[in-house]
Amino acid sequence: MSGNSFGKLFTVTTFGESHGKALGCIIDGCPPGIEISEEEIQVDLDRRKPGTSKFTTQRKEPDQVEILSGVFEGKTTGTSIGMIIHNTDQRSKDYSEIKETFRPNHADYSYEHKYGARDYRGGGRSSARETAMRVAAGSVAKKYLKQRYGIEIRGYMSQLGPIKTEKLDWEQVHQNPFFCPDVDKLPELEDYMKKLRKSGDSIGAKITIVASGMPPGLGEPVFDRLDADLAHALMSINAVKGIEIGDGFGSIEQKGSEHRDELSPEGFLSNHSGGVAGGITTGQDLIAHIALKPTSSILIPGKSINKAGEPIDVITKGRHDPCVGIRATPIAEAMVAMVVMDHVLRHRAQNADVTTSVPVIPSSVDV
Amino acid sequence: MSGNSFGKLFTVTTFGESHGKALGCIIDGCPPGIEISEEEIQVDLDRRKPGTSKFTTQRKEPDQVEILSGVFEGKTTGTSIGMIIHNTDQRSKDYSEIKETFRPNHADYSYEHKYGARDYRGGGRSSARETAMRVAAGSVAKKYLKQRYGIEIRGYMSQLGPIKTEKLDWEQVHQNPFFCPDVDKLPELEDYMKKLRKSGDSIGAKITIVASGMPPGLGEPVFDRLDADLAHALMSINAVKGIEIGDGFGSIEQKGSEHRDELSPEGFLSNHSGGVAGGITTGQDLIAHIALKPTSSILIPGKSINKAGEPIDVITKGRHDPCVGIRATPIAEAMVAMVVMDHVLRHRAQNADVTTSVPVIPSSVDV
Amino acid sequence: MSGNSFGKLFTVTTFGESHGKALGCIIDGCPPGIEISEEEIQVDLDRRKPGTSKFTTQRKEPDQVEILSGVFEGKTTGTSIGMIIHNTDQRSKDYSEIKETFRPNHADYSYEHKYGARDYRGGGRSSARETAMRVAAGSVAKKYLKQRYGIEIRGYMSQLGPIKTEKLDWEQVHQNPFFCPDVDKLPELEDYMKKLRKSGDSIGAKITIVASGMPPGLGEPVFDRLDADLAHALMSINAVKGIEIGDGFGSIEQKGSEHRDELSPEGFLSNHSGGVAGGITTGQDLIAHIALKPTSSILIPGKSINKAGEPIDVITKGRHDPCVGIRATPIAEAMVAMVVMDHVLRHRAQNADVTTSVPVIPSSVDV
Amino acid sequence: MSGNSFGKLFTVTTFGESHGKALGCIIDGCPPGIEISEEEIQVDLDRRKPGTSKFTTQRKEPDQVEILSGVFEGKTTGTSIGMIIHNTDQRSKDYSEIKETFRPNHADYSYEHKYGARDYRGGGRSSARETAMRVAAGSVAKKYLKQRYGIEIRGYMSQLGPIKTEKLDWEQVHQNPFFCPDVDKLPELEDYMKKLRKSGDSIGAKITIVASGMPPGLGEPVFDRLDADLAHALMSINAVKGIEIGDGFGSIEQKGSEHRDELSPEGFLSNHSGGVAGGITTGQDLIAHIALKPTSSILIPGKSINKAGEPIDVITKGRHDPCVGIRATPIAEAMVAMVVMDHVLRHRAQNADVTTSVPVIPSSVDV
Repeated sequence: MSGNSFGKLFTVTTFGESHGKALGCIIDGCPPGIEISEEEIQVDLDRRKPGTSKFTTQRKEPDQVEILSGVFEGKTTGTSIGMIIHNTDQRSKDYSEIKETFRPNHADYSYEHKYGARDYRGGGRSSARETAMRVAAGSVAKKYLKQRYGIEIRGYMSQLGPIKTEKLDWEQVHQNPFFCPDVDKLPELEDYMKKLRKSGDSIGAKITIVASGMPPGLGEPVFDRLDADLAHALMSINAVKGIEIGDGFGSIEQKGSEHRDELSPEGFLSNHSGGVAGGITTGQDLIAHIALKPTSSILIPGKSINKAGEPIDVITKGRHDPCVGIRATPIAEAMVAMVVMDHVLRHRAQNADVTTSVPVIPSSVDV
Repeated sequence: MSGNSFGKLFTVTTFGESHGKALGCIIDGCPPGIEISEEEIQVDLDRRKPGTSKFTTQRKEPDQVEILSGVFEGKTTGTSIGMIIHNTDQRSKDYSEIKETFRPNHADYSYEHKYGARDYRGGGRSSARETAMRVAAGSVAKKYLKQRYGIEIRGYMSQLGPIKTEKLDWEQVHQNPFFCPDVDKLPELEDYMKKLRKSGDSIGAKITIVASGMPPGLGEPVFDRLDADLAHALMSINAVKGIEIGDGFGSIEQKGSEHRDELSPEGFLSNHSGGVAGGITTGQDLIAHIALKPTSSILIPGKSINKAGEPIDVITKGRHDPCVGIRATPIAEAMVAMVVMDHVLRHRAQNADVTTSVPVIPSSVDV
Repeated sequence: MSGNSFGKLFTVTTFGESHGKALGCIIDGCPPGIEISEEEIQVDLDRRKPGTSKFTTQRKEPDQVEILSGVFEGKTTGTSIGMIIHNTDQRSKDYSEIKETFRPNHADYSYEHKYGARDYRGGGRSSARETAMRVAAGSVAKKYLKQRYGIEIRGYMSQLGPIKTEKLDWEQVHQNPFFCPDVDKLPELEDYMKKLRKSGDSIGAKITIVASGMPPGLGEPVFDRLDADLAHALMSINAVKGIEIGDGFGSIEQKGSEHRDELSPEGFLSNHSGGVAGGITTGQDLIAHIALKPTSSILIPGKSINKAGEPIDVITKGRHDPCVGIRATPIAEAMVAMVVMDHVLRHRAQNADVTTSVPVIPSSVDV
Repeated sequence: MSGNSFGKLFTVTTFGESHGKALGCIIDGCPPGIEISEEEIQVDLDRRKPGTSKFTTQRKEPDQVEILSGVFEGKTTGTSIGMIIHNTDQRSKDYSEIKETFRPNHADYSYEHKYGARDYRGGGRSSARETAMRVAAGSVAKKYLKQRYGIEIRGYMSQLGPIKTEKLDWEQVHQNPFFCPDVDKLPELEDYMKKLRKSGDSIGAKITIVASGMPPGLGEPVFDRLDADLAHALMSINAVKGIEIGDGFGSIEQKGSEHRDELSPEGFLSNHSGGVAGGITTGQDLIAHIALKPTSSILIPGKSINKAGEPIDVITKGRHDPCVGIRATPIAEAMVAMVVMDHVLRHRAQNADVTTSVPVIPSSVDV
């Protein structure tokens, strides 16, 4: 009820604060028989972890995951999977300032009113450090979806501040620290980020996630449409302020004759809808875009108040990402994987007996 | 599990198809002692119901709600509230064509693959007719939030195709069939819609919802952030393709020094975040924008396939809204009301003992 | 959250009060393609309905069920099923006495403290009249389990006051008003009930439910053991005060060498455990016993207090069952059916890929 | 969905196997501001832990709990609480025999059919070792209920095999290894257990739980009655085969005039109902009894089959409790605490505004 769990059938519950002893999660509902190892999960965690380039926070965390239960002789058993990551670089710095003040656009003020107190060390539970466990849990879902159904979930950065990527080369995405699929934009991105860091400011970003190999028929009608669950999942990521499925806000100015994705025996003729109709997959690629706000922690002084309600000036020192969007790609992939996994299980529960003679047409659209 | 329920503590479960006998819902978790009548709920239903202007579908449905349980001597009892609306204008037309074919961008093809069959009469469960019950349930939440907490939830159309509203006059919103807050745009809107209908095409729209009078501290951390639950709720509305909280996609190109909402004893100095920080309300106005795609049912022939997989041409006859966005305002208000209500109850459950000496600062920003 | 829903994947939500307009329910998660009709459901409802013999309440209710959605062309569609039963014999009697007083062992006093008010007409929501919708929903589950898996769920009265049945003849159960499987006990039962009615008193009873044809492997470990969910389901029936799985309280004095159900290639050698081990079915018959307390509404005056806290004497007039246990058999069957159905769906969700070479041994024990 | 979570608002999710690396749990929904320490939780864990007397298993586990998150500066923060207990005495014995065979009345055979494989080391997830985390989580609930509401939850052994306790002296319960409240029965109990161990057999037991200081009005109508949730909670404990609320199975032979608990301004005149009416507390002591079967692991050879379906003889060696009921008292207390806590939070969510002029009458009955 208090929001630390996600998913109805593939349920991930997390704990842990930025500067606490450890982060952890429990996956409940994972199918048995999946080969899974700490090494495989670590691959995804390493994509998210801090300190890997000069464009992210310099906090050094190995983010080494340990599986505590639910995996036996190399395979999932079907019982709950416990995983843990110990925090190693939580600095015992002086928090006296942050303790008494509210940083603008951070959760400090809202947490104080919700709980009457807060773990002020590095943002406590509101820190994006919590997303490490999402990546670990999503990694298990990604693997199963790929092996069992051929579903592949991948993301890339599609925009950083004013710089929009123009080409989509999946090979490139994992070869640069920006998750940028357009090699031609790298010099511009590096240059922009260097200037940004020097200015002590931060910037927003846009991430795009694509799930390919989707079968038609996943999702539920009404409230738990696949796109509604995706919106929930993606908006739950720190700093996300907008979600689009398919053409998203572009649909406002489109006419019906343009937007509707016509069908032919050879495949769909377009994919404006982003792979869902009535909340249920069409078999086309599932496409979602998310907007991330600029990091709130910047070196430029800002106005705020302290706990007594008096006006103060705040500078957020410490180690921060100048663009939180950069490391958001693996997190968004993990959330999409959890949603698709959940709907795969839901579908099997209710529709195990379903057969149809209607052919599955191909997704003929390049993304 | 199958998606016909929304909300964890204020839970609304719906049933009903476009051309079935009736639509209905059950509200579970409603506080006792709320004065509620069919007449009050009807006010909201009348705002959504079809056939009230020449710019919406001409289906004639009185959408007369009947309360069957959970209200005694004019007040809610705290037990489950059953409500029903009988369908009266479901035409016994010839469905043989629609039965064998898949209308582009409708849920026909995806439902067929999910369930192996479908109620093809008017879209069955995938029809937006289902949203009538959301409006009825949301009406109860809206009333309680207003009376008990002074929270007011209102929406308006902010864009229809290329026409963007420029002024926000709440009085205007309910005086024209477009939910348009800018009286100067009415002639342009009417003109646009007339031409659109003549062309047999449809158009997208953008709706904005504002919740004012919000207390700080509502929402949960991590997965059930208030904005994440709002995204879930709003994306579950038929035809919605995009969600923004506060500045939304505009945040991508903003710098941290611009985006962060500074605090002062006199109030917040801006509201780029749309009223949430870390997923929890700041006490500022909650602001969400949604993008609705153009209606898929248009008179212009389109390509598709039939159940045998053969290519066909489809014309969607019948009574349809040329812009589904027009009637979406009361639906979006209802969904926001359900989410806020749910979080009010969640907050009371966990944080009943919380006190804080931190002052609540005003929301100083005009929306 | 407020307790009007049951089941995680096959979810039944109900509404309705004893003397309100109607009772209703929504089934969410029902598989598509099940042939179902109002006539079939009515068969189960008729077994529960009041006024069918002189040993039950004389309230006349046809309990005629109407399916409002979710069934199309005679089959379930997979979307939510709405059902309704209109109350027809709610008497507009004078409730002024009951309104101001608390009947002993009724929910009057506890509801008043919970909600601050209550629908006092015939007990409102606390009346067992609510169970009609459980029987309707359970009927759908029973049919599916029988047709798809060969699982049969049946119940009988095993004890009424001091009279214990000794023979189990399933044919007999539906041929007498007591659901008694032992024809030799009928004269004694009739005699006992006649005297009881004359005395104005009431009596308790014991009901036994057997699910045969169970596959091994249903149920979840830890908190949602199949027997734990059964206990939840059965204890939620009005007047139930005790639950036993298999030997139940008899196990206290058993030794391990006696209780353990040994296995052989020809089948299990006993069924003390009632068909579950570690919360998961063994494939043996699932056996549960429930104890129902005597009806609280009796003609013999009792002490109580009124709303002002003053001492009063109460006589509960009106139409009541002298033994609520009599009509509990179809209700208990319905609840067991819902639980088994829910676990069938859960099992399919998680374990769709499971195969094993371990043979299924027969349940060799006669119940 | 897969059964490793309990509670709707105060939600406890556990992981861990008998011979895995660690056991752990996450509490979600705990109110903020509760003073809690590892030392306090350890007190309850020490009551359950193995090896403390010659009448329980000789496995040596310190069961040392570590709090990993959700507690800051000695108080709960309102965010998820992660706790862990490392296994220290999991022996690397030869499991080759147990791996290929199914121990009678254990979960071996049912798990194999459910999951297609199992962690056979010490029963894996089906071991009662899992209950350690329930005790840890329940300890937090117990403390809050006591401090905030004056609710006290205590249990005792009321029967071991043929030996029934006759006196209830709460002081005695924690001064002997049997949780026996009747000092006069101790010699008989010790003698019985010595003979039992010598015979290599095991025995069942009965535990009684009493929650005193209950306010009236807790619980939900219909499916989530407080007693239904208690039945769920208690039946989920390993080896439990029966549940009684109040008089339980004794109610079968009672008349209404005997069973109903009359009210007077000075208090209730009896407590046959065990503190609930209509599923909602009356303010009387909540009383539940549970029946635990004899341990399945005994030294006396038993018949079974192996994975190939061939007949075999099984002897369960290793370290086992001859009466699992003995250590069940703190586990049952923990489960009752979780249920009451959950309903306290539910009640606050929905009924925060409720006031009534109806006086609360005392529970005048000694238990």
